[in-house]
Amino acid sequence: MTAQPLSTRGQQATMLAADYAPQPSIDALLALTAPGMDRVNAVILDRMQSEIPLIPELANHLISSGGKRLRPMLTVASAGLLDYAGDAQYALAAAVEFIHTATLLHDDVVDGSDMRRGKAAANIIFGNPATVLVGDYLFSRSFELMVEAGSLRVLEILARASAIIAEGEVDQLTAQRKVETSEEHYLQIIEAKTAALFAAACRISAVAAGRSAAEEQALDDYGRYLGVAFQLVDDAIDYDSESQEMGKGKGDDFRDGKMTLPVILAYAAGTPEEQQFWRDAIAGFRTEDEDLAEAVAIIARHGTVEATRQRAADYAQKAMDALSIFPDSPMRRAMQEAALFSVARRY
Amino acid sequence: MTAQPLSTRGQQATMLAADYAPQPSIDALLALTAPGMDRVNAVILDRMQSEIPLIPELANHLISSGGKRLRPMLTVASAGLLDYAGDAQYALAAAVEFIHTATLLHDDVVDGSDMRRGKAAANIIFGNPATVLVGDYLFSRSFELMVEAGSLRVLEILARASAIIAEGEVDQLTAQRKVETSEEHYLQIIEAKTAALFAAACRISAVAAGRSAAEEQALDDYGRYLGVAFQLVDDAIDYDSESQEMGKGKGDDFRDGKMTLPVILAYAAGTPEEQQFWRDAIAGFRTEDEDLAEAVAIIARHGTVEATRQRAADYAQKAMDALSIFPDSPMRRAMQEAALFSVARRY
Repeated sequence: MTAQPLSTRGQQATMLAADYAPQPSIDALLALTAPGMDRVNAVILDRMQSEIPLIPELANHLISSGGKRLRPMLTVASAGLLDYAGDAQYALAAAVEFIHTATLLHDDVVDGSDMRRGKAAANIIFGNPATVLVGDYLFSRSFELMVEAGSLRVLEILARASAIIAEGEVDQLTAQRKVETSEEHYLQIIEAKTAALFAAACRISAVAAGRSAAEEQALDDYGRYLGVAFQLVDDAIDYDSESQEMGKGKGDDFRDGKMTLPVILAYAAGTPEEQQFWRDAIAGFRTEDEDLAEAVAIIARHGTVEATRQRAADYAQKAMDALSIFPDSPMRRAMQEAALFSVARRY
Repeated sequence: MTAQPLSTRGQQATMLAADYAPQPSIDALLALTAPGMDRVNAVILDRMQSEIPLIPELANHLISSGGKRLRPMLTVASAGLLDYAGDAQYALAAAVEFIHTATLLHDDVVDGSDMRRGKAAANIIFGNPATVLVGDYLFSRSFELMVEAGSLRVLEILARASAIIAEGEVDQLTAQRKVETSEEHYLQIIEAKTAALFAAACRISAVAAGRSAAEEQALDDYGRYLGVAFQLVDDAIDYDSESQEMGKGKGDDFRDGKMTLPVILAYAAGTPEEQQFWRDAIAGFRTEDEDLAEAVAIIARHGTVEATRQRAADYAQKAMDALSIFPDSPMRRAMQEAALFSVARRY
């Protein structure tokens, strides 16, 4: 945070990226949501239990592995922004995290990754069958939590988001190894597979709080733009020559032949030789470490990691703007700074 | 159907297996539910669509492959039994089928089966990743359908059933290759992985129709006992030396080292040599066709396929009895005969 944010309560001013110090942080959001997140974490730990010991064991492998719990934090933050203190937010935030965890478990099976968050992926330790089934269990539990919260509209929003996530994942699978994937198509994919749950996580707090359609939409917009920014930066980091710590196996996207924005832009700007390299690499004929090094070098030459980060910064700005209908408050500023942080982060 | 069923309207008599001809049929149930199932099928076809072409393609592979749609049929039949004509039953029946289809798709990945219903399994044609994700899509769509039906209690029942199914599947996975699995544990597994959805499919019609707790429970009991009977017979058929047509790869349970009732009973009654055979086979050291032939021979010697069928007949009788609180009607008789059919079937 800067010492003196320009926007003040009631002024409705749009906060600009330039209002912040060069190193935005997520610390303010973490601090403001900490009491709520304690309650969310208690729900998560309670509801991942089962009489079948393998279920909490496998679920805990992922849930305790240092994930940021960003999505449930957005639910709690949105509730705070609206001065909504109802208990429903904790069950709903836990439901959001369970949907996300189920998605990650199934992604591990889908991607065949060896690593997730610096640990062996669940399917490597527990096998594909258990990983698929515990994902299903958490997904079912998430709907049980939503039922307890008692709002059909929330169920509608999260069921729809879940369907959109699955569609986005299938879409990404279909686009895999296709070098001609357009930037527009890529943005559709990440809006579905990532941003839809961010948007829903924020919107449901407005529903639980009984707020207006405009406030619901503003929170949905904030979450959606933040989710796109977040995914763009994730995809940039995978090719960032400066990044040291990935939290996932570096070069996974490259080896899986996923067309992410740094590659899409580099392919579009590439020389005929570079385009041939990308065609071969995305098709799966260039999977060695030296091939990844060449990919990173080409991308550095065209500056497409920076271009991707710039695109992310534009979305982060839109996310910040979306909150301008709410009066200024510590939570609003923390949520806006979190959008900047999502772009500035290097890991 | 026999020409003259003994029980008549208002008599509340329990229908006994002996009241039926030797070859009970599901034809009466099919005929009575046909108009409703036309509407259910229209919902299914409508809601499995997506702009991502692979989704309907993969979903249709399973949905059009001649499954009996027994579970949604139970929802429609239960509605008919209660003289409930509301439209919610069609969305709910489709939701039940989507949950079942999602489970089958994930089972294909879990079991690694090559065949399902006489066709190549979805994961063999489309791969594990797409199969997992389309299962997730259908699961999400099922909750969207439930939301449209507008009952939180129905959502609670089906979300709970989904969690129980996943628990049962993980439990089965944990018990796999363990020759010491008890009959009690096996029954717990099949109650969870199979009977819970049968029970929910029936119960939700009573909820939609606004009926009493006793009527809800009676339909739940009917579905649960029918589901256990159904699964017992499925497991018997896998070792039935007379069965020709399996609809799934014969001997799958054997090769997967699943402890089903025919094996549990044969192991308990076995000679020391036979017990050694089972230990080796369930541990995965006997997977050839001649080993399966030996398993079938041992089971035939101890008559445990017949014993399993007898156990199923007991459950079918309980299912029939559960309906005795409802007045006699063509639908009640058709549902009772379906319970007998579930035991008598050879495929």
